[in-house]
Amino acid sequence: RFGYFGRGVSIMFCRVSRCLTNGKVFLSPSGEDMVSFHTRDTTGLRMLQNDGVEVVLLTSSEDPVTQSMADKLKKMIGCEVMDVGEEPLKDVQSVVEKNRLDWKNVAYMGNDPADATCLNLAGLSAVPADAPKDAADSAKYTCRHAGGMGAVREFAEHILLQKEKAKTQMKQDRIDRNNF
Amino acid sequence: RFGYFGRGVSIMFCRVSRCLTNGKVFLSPSGEDMVSFHTRDTTGLRMLQNDGVEVVLLTSSEDPVTQSMADKLKKMIGCEVMDVGEEPLKDVQSVVEKNRLDWKNVAYMGNDPADATCLNLAGLSAVPADAPKDAADSAKYTCRHAGGMGAVREFAEHILLQKEKAKTQMKQDRIDRNNF
Amino acid sequence: RFGYFGRGVSIMFCRVSRCLTNGKVFLSPSGEDMVSFHTRDTTGLRMLQNDGVEVVLLTSSEDPVTQSMADKLKKMIGCEVMDVGEEPLKDVQSVVEKNRLDWKNVAYMGNDPADATCLNLAGLSAVPADAPKDAADSAKYTCRHAGGMGAVREFAEHILLQKEKAKTQMKQDRIDRNNF
Amino acid sequence: RFGYFGRGVSIMFCRVSRCLTNGKVFLSPSGEDMVSFHTRDTTGLRMLQNDGVEVVLLTSSEDPVTQSMADKLKKMIGCEVMDVGEEPLKDVQSVVEKNRLDWKNVAYMGNDPADATCLNLAGLSAVPADAPKDAADSAKYTCRHAGGMGAVREFAEHILLQKEKAKTQMKQDRIDRNNF
Repeated sequence: RFGYFGRGVSIMFCRVSRCLTNGKVFLSPSGEDMVSFHTRDTTGLRMLQNDGVEVVLLTSSEDPVTQSMADKLKKMIGCEVMDVGEEPLKDVQSVVEKNRLDWKNVAYMGNDPADATCLNLAGLSAVPADAPKDAADSAKYTCRHAGGMGAVREFAEHILLQKEKAKTQMKQDRIDRNNF
Repeated sequence: RFGYFGRGVSIMFCRVSRCLTNGKVFLSPSGEDMVSFHTRDTTGLRMLQNDGVEVVLLTSSEDPVTQSMADKLKKMIGCEVMDVGEEPLKDVQSVVEKNRLDWKNVAYMGNDPADATCLNLAGLSAVPADAPKDAADSAKYTCRHAGGMGAVREFAEHILLQKEKAKTQMKQDRIDRNNF
Repeated sequence: RFGYFGRGVSIMFCRVSRCLTNGKVFLSPSGEDMVSFHTRDTTGLRMLQNDGVEVVLLTSSEDPVTQSMADKLKKMIGCEVMDVGEEPLKDVQSVVEKNRLDWKNVAYMGNDPADATCLNLAGLSAVPADAPKDAADSAKYTCRHAGGMGAVREFAEHILLQKEKAKTQMKQDRIDRNNF
Repeated sequence: RFGYFGRGVSIMFCRVSRCLTNGKVFLSPSGEDMVSFHTRDTTGLRMLQNDGVEVVLLTSSEDPVTQSMADKLKKMIGCEVMDVGEEPLKDVQSVVEKNRLDWKNVAYMGNDPADATCLNLAGLSAVPADAPKDAADSAKYTCRHAGGMGAVREFAEHILLQKEKAKTQMKQDRIDRNNF
């Protein structure tokens, strides 16, 4: 009755590498490298945005995702892209505090042992099916889809379902209270 | 005996995204994005055209299929490419009316919940194996192949088979009538 | 004892599309399209060349393999690339006659119903695992690997094994004759 | 107690073709060809480097890995890239001797019959899951992952585990000696 789990998810942090991509990088000898993503996943992010959830993509300097690619993603998906270094907690925490958010209203998706702390803290958190054990053990939800193959869409639908359930439960509680 | 199902399919509407492609987009940081398609599928579209079926490809502004890619497909496959926005029905309906077609002679292939109405209306309709449930429930035929992996070819062969069957049945009916 | 099957294979005709490639084409909106091939397969072609087998790659105007790509393959693999149109028999036959070859010493790999006649005529012939039934029925050997995934290498090893077996058999026959 | 197996691995030789890549080459008709690699694998190489293991990548003139691609890999992974020709032993041996290394402290990963000698000599050696039998028979370890799909990461973790085990065993031996 108190603190509806996942009720108020208003922000979603999502790793680009191995969540939105499948980890493969296409190496162009002297040009720019390419990565692939799946339209099912970008549609998932748009579904969250349409439901009022802010999407923040996380990149790391170790990723082959260059600044120009981050700029493109930013424009394409219409979201922030944040460079988080090796330990994402510090950067994510500063966004959470700046926006006076509660971690239980934060959704987080990662695919790396370094994501463990954030996966533990977030009210809703997930890893793709191909995540390493250290990351998977910290996530509340393990997707059936692998990174770059629909995992982000699956988690987006999971989030929207939790929000829907919480709303229904709140209504029911209000009715119960009124009829008491 | 009346209204041979699929007999007169004279037009095929086909989504590019996730029907002709597999949904993957290769992101080039500062250049043009690439998508892949399968020669088996483009051969399927050519088979339909050789049988007198007009092919119209459908793109959406949400797709990563840009205008220049649509131009290329148009030239490569020798067909119209129509931008349909979020709800394809309106645009498809206007083509159906303009050409004085009957929906039962329309073939439609989609892979999105937004395609449900058209999939329901069309005389022959199909979704790839990896379609979401909402779309699959509205389609008359679910392909064994996934999008970008032969689904379009499979549906093309299905259409040609239905046309062949209808022709045979018409001949038989004529013989029956004459021998009555 | 007469006409050792596959003994003298001196030429191998191989379709590029769906034998050396997997059928996927990467569409670059305004640039050149790309196809992928597997180094295992190109190594297979080199193994044949090292054994004295001439390799001729076949392309068709319907393929997305452009002239510039044919030029690249020619240089990379060190072989002829021949454009064969819809029916490859005519072009292949002219090479066979010009080189005074016997069809039983020709190896042929295809993945298309149009290849059926050549697959039937050739002394050794194969299709990849994903070949349509019409083509597969005409081939002497069906690979366990799909096109672009090792099928060409598998057929190359099959050819070399047949040549090896025929040589051993010839030696045995000579010994038998001498000891008679 | 003498010569802890894998204890002191200080160098790792790794084939680029079919170990770090999956063997697929994307053919650009008149531009540069592309290959793909997996971030999981490059992270694995970085894990080795962080543990003091020098990484040397091996290319061959038969590979489609051009000089410009080797330069890029060199910069990206921060390691040497060595061209080894058809028989890698000679080149690898010269590095081993120059650095006064013992072969039992060398790690080697290959995916080609030509790698057999080095796979036999190296203290720790591995092939990806899709290696040909000749190579696999010479390797001490066969990865569950295929080339370009995590095999390098798997072998890197295997090496680090062996080093860890050897250290623990050394400590135990020292304790045993002291308490004797």
